[in-house]
Amino acid sequence: MKFHVLTLFPDMVENGLHTSIIGRGIEKGLLSVETVNIRDFSENKHNRVDDYPYGGGAGMVMQAGPVCKACRHVEEKIGKKARVLYMTPQGRVFSQAMAEELAKEEDLIFLCGHYEGIDERALEQVVTDEVSIGDYVLTGGELPAMVMIDSIARLLPGVLHNADSTGSESHQNDRLEYPQYTRPELFEGKAVPPVLLSGHHANIEKWRAQQSLKRTWERRPDLLSKTELTEEERLFVEKLEKGLAKEETS
Amino acid sequence: MKFHVLTLFPDMVENGLHTSIIGRGIEKGLLSVETVNIRDFSENKHNRVDDYPYGGGAGMVMQAGPVCKACRHVEEKIGKKARVLYMTPQGRVFSQAMAEELAKEEDLIFLCGHYEGIDERALEQVVTDEVSIGDYVLTGGELPAMVMIDSIARLLPGVLHNADSTGSESHQNDRLEYPQYTRPELFEGKAVPPVLLSGHHANIEKWRAQQSLKRTWERRPDLLSKTELTEEERLFVEKLEKGLAKEETS
Repeated sequence: MKFHVLTLFPDMVENGLHTSIIGRGIEKGLLSVETVNIRDFSENKHNRVDDYPYGGGAGMVMQAGPVCKACRHVEEKIGKKARVLYMTPQGRVFSQAMAEELAKEEDLIFLCGHYEGIDERALEQVVTDEVSIGDYVLTGGELPAMVMIDSIARLLPGVLHNADSTGSESHQNDRLEYPQYTRPELFEGKAVPPVLLSGHHANIEKWRAQQSLKRTWERRPDLLSKTELTEEERLFVEKLEKGLAKEETS
Repeated sequence: MKFHVLTLFPDMVENGLHTSIIGRGIEKGLLSVETVNIRDFSENKHNRVDDYPYGGGAGMVMQAGPVCKACRHVEEKIGKKARVLYMTPQGRVFSQAMAEELAKEEDLIFLCGHYEGIDERALEQVVTDEVSIGDYVLTGGELPAMVMIDSIARLLPGVLHNADSTGSESHQNDRLEYPQYTRPELFEGKAVPPVLLSGHHANIEKWRAQQSLKRTWERRPDLLSKTELTEEERLFVEKLEKGLAKEETS
C-alpha cells in the first residue's frame, strides 16, 4: 500500500509515522508514506499558496491551483487515478469499517488543508472523499491524515506481529475490549481477577466476552444497538439492566 | 497551559507539535508540551515496561508500575493533582465541547498506551478520564494525544492570530462550515459564487449561514437535532426537505 500525503508540513508527517509498528512496516516494505509539498506547486514568486477569502472574514484560504497541481502530480507519477481523501470536519466520519474498506486500495492520496481550508473548487475538481476523524476542529489536516494512515496501515498483512492482534480489539465487531492485566499479580493492593490465573481457557474466554459486553453496555450503549446479540448475550445484558451484573465466572 | 505527555515515543510527540500554529504558540510561551518517557520508570534491568497478558492472548500489556510512577513524577513536579487522560478506544468520545472544557485547565496529563493496552489497575489508580478520538483502532495513544492537544491549544487565548478564527468553523454551534473561495475568480471554468464578490455584507452573511445550514443538513443531519433553529432557519430547512433548495441570495 502506498500512502501519498499532500501537505504544507512534510516533516511533521514523515517524523510522526516512522516510529514503532508503522515504522517497521515501512522498513519491511509493506507500505510507504510519501509526502508532496503543496508549496512546490505555488504559482507566484513569493511561494505563497494562500490568499484572502472572497466575501471577507478571518484567516486565509488555500488556493485551488497548487492543490490541484500537487494532486495531479501524484496521479501522473503512479500512472492512474486514486482515491483522494480530504481531511475536513465537514466530511464523513472515519470509522473502523472505513479503515477496513480503505485498506483494500493500492494507493491513497491524503490532502491536508490549513488555515481556513481550501478553495471549494479544488475539492470539486480532485477530491473523491471528504473525511473527518471526529467532531472537533484542528489546526490542519496532517494529524488526521496520520491517524487514518496509522489505522489503515495496521490492518495490512504482516504489519502487526500476528494476525490475531487485530481480532479482539475495541470496535472490531462493535464491542469495546475487555480489561487487560499483566505481572505482578498484586499491584498496590489490587489483585488480578482469579479467572485469568486459572488456566481454564473456556472460562477465560467467557469472562472476557462478558467483560467486553459489559463495558460496551456501560460506556457505549450506542454501539450495542448496531450488532446482533446471541441469545446468551441478550440474557447477560438483561441481567446488567436489572442490576444483577455479576460475572458468573469471576 | 501545560501539556504533559506520558509516552514510549517522546520524539514522535515533540516533532509532531512544533510546526505551524501550535509551534508558534509554544515559542510565544502560551503553552508548553513536555514529554515523559515511561521507559525511564521501568522496574527491570532490561528497561522493559510490558509483559504477557494474564489469561493468554496475542500481544503485550504495559505494566502498571512504570505507568503509575511516570504519572506521579509529573504530579510531584507540578505540585498538584491534574486530570490524567488515557487515550483509548474505550473512552468517552472526544468532541469540540470537551476541547472547550479542557482548555480551562492549567495542566493536563496525557497517558499514551501501546501494544494491547495498559494493565487495568494502573488506569484505576491514576487515570481520571478515558478518552477516545473516534471509533477506530490505532497502534498507540500518541497520535490521539497530539490530536487532542492541537484541538485544545488552538482555543487558548493568543494562539490563533485573531479571536475570530475560532468563531465560524465546523462544530462551533454544531454547524459545518460554509464553502470558502479565494483568487482567482475563475478556476478551470468554475466561478466564485457572485454574492461573495458583491461587497454586500448582509447578503454574504446570509448566504454563508444558509450554506452552513444546508451542508449540515446534507452531510450531518445528526448535528442539527442537537441545536435549536431560529424560525427563519426552520423554514429554510423545510424548503431543503421539500427539494426547493435554492439559496435566495445566490
